[in-house]
Amino acid sequence: MAERRRAADDRPDGRVRAVIDAVRPAVDGGRFPVKRIAGEPVRVACDCFTDGHDALRVMLHWRGEDEPGWREVEMREAGNDLWEAAFTPPAPGRYRYTVVAWVDHFLSWRRELARREDEADIASAALAGAHLAQEASARATGEDRRQLAQWARRLAQPAPAADLKALGLDDGLAALCLRHPDRRLEAAWPGEMPLVADRERARFGAWYELFPRSASDEPGRHGTFADVEKRLDYVAGMGFDVLYLPPIHPIGRERRKGRDNALVATPGDVGSPWAIGAAEGGHEAIHPALGTAEDFRRLVAAARERGLEIALDIAYQCAPDHPWVREHPAWFRHRPDGTVQYAENPPKKYQDIYPFDFETEDWRALWAALKGVLDHWLAEGVRIFRVDNPHTKSFAFWEWAIGEVRREHPDAIFLAEAFTRPKVMHRLAKLGFTQSYTYFAWRNSRRELEDYFTELAHGPGRDYFRPNVWPNTPDILTEALQFGGRPAFLSRLVLAATLAPTYGIYGPAYEHMEAAPREPGSEEYRGSEKYEIRHWDLARPDSLRPFIALVNRIRREQPALRTDAGLRFLATDNDQLLAYARHTPDRESQVIVVVNLDPHNPHSGWVTMDLGALGLDESRPYQMHDLLTGARHLWQGARNFVRLDPERSPAHVFALRRRLRREHDFDYFL
Amino acid sequence: MAERRRAADDRPDGRVRAVIDAVRPAVDGGRFPVKRIAGEPVRVACDCFTDGHDALRVMLHWRGEDEPGWREVEMREAGNDLWEAAFTPPAPGRYRYTVVAWVDHFLSWRRELARREDEADIASAALAGAHLAQEASARATGEDRRQLAQWARRLAQPAPAADLKALGLDDGLAALCLRHPDRRLEAAWPGEMPLVADRERARFGAWYELFPRSASDEPGRHGTFADVEKRLDYVAGMGFDVLYLPPIHPIGRERRKGRDNALVATPGDVGSPWAIGAAEGGHEAIHPALGTAEDFRRLVAAARERGLEIALDIAYQCAPDHPWVREHPAWFRHRPDGTVQYAENPPKKYQDIYPFDFETEDWRALWAALKGVLDHWLAEGVRIFRVDNPHTKSFAFWEWAIGEVRREHPDAIFLAEAFTRPKVMHRLAKLGFTQSYTYFAWRNSRRELEDYFTELAHGPGRDYFRPNVWPNTPDILTEALQFGGRPAFLSRLVLAATLAPTYGIYGPAYEHMEAAPREPGSEEYRGSEKYEIRHWDLARPDSLRPFIALVNRIRREQPALRTDAGLRFLATDNDQLLAYARHTPDRESQVIVVVNLDPHNPHSGWVTMDLGALGLDESRPYQMHDLLTGARHLWQGARNFVRLDPERSPAHVFALRRRLRREHDFDYFL
Repeated sequence: MAERRRAADDRPDGRVRAVIDAVRPAVDGGRFPVKRIAGEPVRVACDCFTDGHDALRVMLHWRGEDEPGWREVEMREAGNDLWEAAFTPPAPGRYRYTVVAWVDHFLSWRRELARREDEADIASAALAGAHLAQEASARATGEDRRQLAQWARRLAQPAPAADLKALGLDDGLAALCLRHPDRRLEAAWPGEMPLVADRERARFGAWYELFPRSASDEPGRHGTFADVEKRLDYVAGMGFDVLYLPPIHPIGRERRKGRDNALVATPGDVGSPWAIGAAEGGHEAIHPALGTAEDFRRLVAAARERGLEIALDIAYQCAPDHPWVREHPAWFRHRPDGTVQYAENPPKKYQDIYPFDFETEDWRALWAALKGVLDHWLAEGVRIFRVDNPHTKSFAFWEWAIGEVRREHPDAIFLAEAFTRPKVMHRLAKLGFTQSYTYFAWRNSRRELEDYFTELAHGPGRDYFRPNVWPNTPDILTEALQFGGRPAFLSRLVLAATLAPTYGIYGPAYEHMEAAPREPGSEEYRGSEKYEIRHWDLARPDSLRPFIALVNRIRREQPALRTDAGLRFLATDNDQLLAYARHTPDRESQVIVVVNLDPHNPHSGWVTMDLGALGLDESRPYQMHDLLTGARHLWQGARNFVRLDPERSPAHVFALRRRLRREHDFDYFL
Repeated sequence: MAERRRAADDRPDGRVRAVIDAVRPAVDGGRFPVKRIAGEPVRVACDCFTDGHDALRVMLHWRGEDEPGWREVEMREAGNDLWEAAFTPPAPGRYRYTVVAWVDHFLSWRRELARREDEADIASAALAGAHLAQEASARATGEDRRQLAQWARRLAQPAPAADLKALGLDDGLAALCLRHPDRRLEAAWPGEMPLVADRERARFGAWYELFPRSASDEPGRHGTFADVEKRLDYVAGMGFDVLYLPPIHPIGRERRKGRDNALVATPGDVGSPWAIGAAEGGHEAIHPALGTAEDFRRLVAAARERGLEIALDIAYQCAPDHPWVREHPAWFRHRPDGTVQYAENPPKKYQDIYPFDFETEDWRALWAALKGVLDHWLAEGVRIFRVDNPHTKSFAFWEWAIGEVRREHPDAIFLAEAFTRPKVMHRLAKLGFTQSYTYFAWRNSRRELEDYFTELAHGPGRDYFRPNVWPNTPDILTEALQFGGRPAFLSRLVLAATLAPTYGIYGPAYEHMEAAPREPGSEEYRGSEKYEIRHWDLARPDSLRPFIALVNRIRREQPALRTDAGLRFLATDNDQLLAYARHTPDRESQVIVVVNLDPHNPHSGWVTMDLGALGLDESRPYQMHDLLTGARHLWQGARNFVRLDPERSPAHVFALRRRLRREHDFDYFL
């Protein structure tokens, strides 16, 4: 590792002539980390130049955040003063990178020598080169030192100009001199850019949400962790990677809400899992009806055996009978009459929920307790947390808590459930949330989907905001699903699963096409599982289970769908046809998706393939392999015809098979 | 002025809940100053929000760089978490601005009270409000303190809910509470953003370049400052603001170049003014043939009387016989044989020019001497410097030198003559150059002009890179001018004068349509004034002088052409017709320019006016007043027909006169 030297900024020396500008990627100039995946190259670029014509050497420096020294990678000029290099963070964790550069007199000398024609000039240049080699020798040791001294002597000896020029341009001399550069006047980018390397699940995954208490096989019986365990094969069989459970803690009895959010519960009502805490305990306890801590640990392990990870819900709020309300009155606001202030947004009141007061004098203890909840479940083997409404808790707390957790558990993943204003969502992503829910549920038209996913894939958030795309949640039953029937459930699933690498569904409501709202105009489910136990008959013949399994298998098999690098929308001449291409950075894997957005009518039209970007040749056919149906189509040129009948299949998911020309003009398909 | 308090960053307090993001304008996150004009409002925006529903107060802080305290301006929310305010730097100089914000409990309480309906809630809220008023009273003094205490008592007394609500929403109470906020948990943007306020000439001006030695009335006689003085009326009469003179110093005799850059000069050759320094002196001396220091001072004063400012050329390089070459050998590089290294870019050699070595150990003395040159001419009354090839001198030097000069002379203006790669030009602008030459000379097609000026007006450089647009210079005689004849000289002038607020021409070559290159394919003038004295007959009947005078008068009279705020290109259906609109920030002044880019053929076509942006009504006519011809056209709707014959006039410069409806449906034109 190289010792870092600084000249330009810590110790201004007017002779430093290299200029480093715009080191990137960067989030807010380095205030927040860039997010990448461990084991994959991080491409770093900067603008670098100096006055006049002299040659530069530019080095990317990178290190693990706690490592003392920098690793050094030489950057290459890509034209127009743009310099590039890459490094690969080996494991999840926090890293830093920066750039140093210097005007290199040997390189400048060599570049000029190559262009010199005048014999006297070449002789004079050889003497100057001898001096440079001698200086390099003085910086070197051992064999390099000896060889450089010898080069210096040879360059200083009179000889024909052509010989001197050849000597000076010798690659061996260059290699030696470049190994021992004069870096006394090195410039350093003043900042160190932070980077968070995650495991792949942070970017790619299919999530499935279910209510454990509805997982029982028998109608009317409260589900248990053991029931969920029995359901793991069902979930894993559909190809999901993450099984997310709403809060599993004791549910408050005071001011409990009834079915369909009724203000007063009847004796049999089970309450909302988000009204956390009762006599049995709070955020670290388990609802007795679900099972024991041991049952939970067994569930986590059984899921892991099937390639599934359990994600828990973190909802930092208390039911009135949560033990903390009694033990830590200072953590809550109080009304003038001394009662605890419940959540409200006048005139609406949420009397069953007490929010924390993040302005409490006792904030250090509160923060420690909230982080303690995370520590507890981390100790139980949980590494993925879906955080309920993080935007109603202090932003400073999240930056601290996520940072602390990830210091010890760099594999921890936090999904922000903040369906709120864009800048608030972006801030949460910047300060540490691994992923974020999105506005996808309410983006239905071609224009809306193109604009939104172009922004997600290519906007300023691309370096820190990872979308997790859900067509439904227990809170969100969109009108698109209420009125679109089976075709809408199919097309919204394909969109969610292929527009971004991470998506999720709330099931079994989704695969059973549950579409009845609590009342007209509402996005709440009628008979919502948030307030009651539901029984699901998983054997229904119309279940979307096989289709979902197929889509998830395609996602796993197509590298293009696992990355977040390449998303481009393709032109179509019918606004009900949305078409887009996804690809891996090396373009080895390319997937083209076409979706009929109209659930009621067949649509046809022409899709314009961007042949150049796809690496296709206008004059040669290419194969479009529909991974949903297995059909293979031979297309040629940019414009190709597509027809999609929503009653049959509302989408094509094509793998692009380029036709390659081999020796002897023999064509084959990949 | 407010004392600045910091909570979020200097002294982290977990209870600080306001979040400030993206304070702007910002150049590289505050590393470099934003540029604005003194006396004009600087609009500052930021994103600001907090967790949950609480209300924020957000304050813009600004100050002169050397002032100890901040001035405070309350920012207003413009929707979607965007907050805005403005301040007006009163005089040229350096300023700083930043933002603070806090969660305001009184404002939050008041906003909630307005929405409360439940009588018990209102009674409880009144008690909470009494507490807030009491706290505000404790922070206040004098009459405010007394009144707030009284409000607290009134809110605490039992009363009907409607009365309590009215009391709580009283504007007088709000005004008092907002004057004494609780700012203990104030958040502060961690940076201070620098801003340079310039005088208006930094943004708006017409420049005229002439060689003083060619200013004599008699053919063959070396021109003098007195001759230039006699020519001031000619230059001022054309409406120019700045008269820029190439270097006025003694010209080296060693290795002097001859006419048309001949390698060897003949005895009569006068040499290039950029080969600075001879026995008579260097950068602070005046060429004896031009006159004395006293003559120069008289010229500066005479120019000022006519509203003209003299700009000098700063070319930091030496002829071989410059006194510094002998006095300060350490400021130059030496070849192995001990001779001074002349400028070269192999295989090209410039033996008459010695560049400075900015890596010299003696760099402090060199920097001081170079800045001394500026100090000398500042003392002689010069405030505008055109800097020759700044990109071949150390960037660190420029940032220091310009910063130092402007600390003492905030009215100083520096124009960077760096015709080089874009990132280098941008860096020079960032580090202090007031203006920059551009690529305009080589942008001729509609697409090129639209792309380039859209980038200049709206790209990242808009906050720091001010273009100074020249159709010709002594180094640049483009093919567009060589082959385009009078129509090209007219259209290129209109483009330069109306696409950006600052432009310049090299005269009298320009108004005399000098178009002969040194040789085919060259952009050098034949018989270039750089190497010889020229005599110009200013009475030529085909001179463009009246046209230039008209264009410059239009520029001065139309506020839209003095600003750099609004430039939008308009669609036309003929690629030889370029159309664009300029406007002041308040849109009181709007100018629409249409130029025929083809110097050889008349062109006609339809121009599409963006009615919404122009504030026009589809159903009502508007007047287009051609300021070049005086003709007035009545247009209506978006698409209007234009025909331009280059032999008559290659451009329209329209003032848009909106038709206003007055009382009794009486129309008139502004």
